[in-house]
Amino acid sequence: MYTLKLKTRYSETDQGGIVHNSAYILYLENARIEFMQQMGVDINALENEGFLVPVISQSVKYLRPLKSLEEISVTVKIEHLTNVRFVFSYEIIHDRVKVLEGQSEHCLLNKHFKPVRLPNNIKEVFLKNYQ
Amino acid sequence: MYTLKLKTRYSETDQGGIVHNSAYILYLENARIEFMQQMGVDINALENEGFLVPVISQSVKYLRPLKSLEEISVTVKIEHLTNVRFVFSYEIIHDRVKVLEGQSEHCLLNKHFKPVRLPNNIKEVFLKNYQ
Amino acid sequence: MYTLKLKTRYSETDQGGIVHNSAYILYLENARIEFMQQMGVDINALENEGFLVPVISQSVKYLRPLKSLEEISVTVKIEHLTNVRFVFSYEIIHDRVKVLEGQSEHCLLNKHFKPVRLPNNIKEVFLKNYQ
Amino acid sequence: MYTLKLKTRYSETDQGGIVHNSAYILYLENARIEFMQQMGVDINALENEGFLVPVISQSVKYLRPLKSLEEISVTVKIEHLTNVRFVFSYEIIHDRVKVLEGQSEHCLLNKHFKPVRLPNNIKEVFLKNYQ
Repeated sequence: MYTLKLKTRYSETDQGGIVHNSAYILYLENARIEFMQQMGVDINALENEGFLVPVISQSVKYLRPLKSLEEISVTVKIEHLTNVRFVFSYEIIHDRVKVLEGQSEHCLLNKHFKPVRLPNNIKEVFLKNYQ
Repeated sequence: MYTLKLKTRYSETDQGGIVHNSAYILYLENARIEFMQQMGVDINALENEGFLVPVISQSVKYLRPLKSLEEISVTVKIEHLTNVRFVFSYEIIHDRVKVLEGQSEHCLLNKHFKPVRLPNNIKEVFLKNYQ
Repeated sequence: MYTLKLKTRYSETDQGGIVHNSAYILYLENARIEFMQQMGVDINALENEGFLVPVISQSVKYLRPLKSLEEISVTVKIEHLTNVRFVFSYEIIHDRVKVLEGQSEHCLLNKHFKPVRLPNNIKEVFLKNYQ
Repeated sequence: MYTLKLKTRYSETDQGGIVHNSAYILYLENARIEFMQQMGVDINALENEGFLVPVISQSVKYLRPLKSLEEISVTVKIEHLTNVRFVFSYEIIHDRVKVLEGQSEHCLLNKHFKPVRLPNNIKEVFLKNYQ
């Protein structure tokens, strides 16, 4: 589990006066990449070795609007794990209220965009950080 | 049902060499807003009257990667409708292959961020364009 | 010279109710990349050959605000050209009024991020489209 | 003068493998808004009072590329000030090397998009922070 503290950016708002729904998607990615890096799974290193770590699917519930320059906490954990796929779940909290919950599903692709079995070291570290 | 033709932008790619997952979310919004406008439901007019039309939830399956400067078709239709909520479903096609399918759920909020019953004219036009 | 017609996107607005200044930067890039492609200089092909075409500098004057879902014309032309660098100039027009003017300066970098002399075929096609 | 520490985001990269030029524009805005807030000039409060603080012009030199997940320092100071306009200048430093320098020019607009004289309290605090 990992929690990233962020501040919503002015540029992430839209004319409705609230943070645009696409910005949350980037918050989740930020938290996920930091979580992976903390576990020793560096996205830059993986890509240099020829892998991609795409989002296969994601689903998000927007529970409360956010305004610009608000402090938020994005918590990410490993929700599910197979030999090929892994699922992260997320919560965003602002001012002690949950404003978003969501999930994203991932795999590793090789250079030909084909899914590959998770390398043992990644699977082990994900298992260790399970829940 | 409405289909918007778009071209993926260079700036929407990421260092993995493919279009970033968040860009698709904007493609869906573009198609949805054009579809609504074609039905006579203008987002700018709605917001000027004091309403917001937020995304309450969305879920997306990424089936194939996209590269920069590729032509895509984003098709949106009304999937579900109640007195308060409405759901759009989407498909993105590139080169006759489906690259994404997804859904987004919406409601109307008043100035105090409270959900309101859909105005009759909106409900009627949505019903007329159902499926 | 090349003119790209675009429609401002809802997601490009900010809480001020107008299109965010960073969105214009993407409009200019879109027009520039289409212009180059029309001249036979394909950015994807160049990058596959190991070149980058970075922005070295850019300057922009914002003359009028834009709102969401407005039709605009982005005109780009080659302003200046040396053996190494090239400058594009831009105008954005909405409703017969100029809303932006700007310039961007570019070069070709090799894989080691070192500037290289412009290949002859590129220099020739740029010269032919000068002004 | 104010310095904001940031980390470049994965999503801010493009297929060239480096941070996209438009992302820097957002870094500058982030630093500027934090600087203003630190001086007591809150952008949200200003907009609630009916003002906009648009970018009138900006110019940027990109000196070095940035990669994803790199730590940067964005320094902003007040460069110039009149009764109506104010100019910020910026530097971005990564790993003790300057990667960007730039300027942005601003004014206050009222609800009719007309420039107004800077309120005394803002002019005073800007003068006090003049470097």
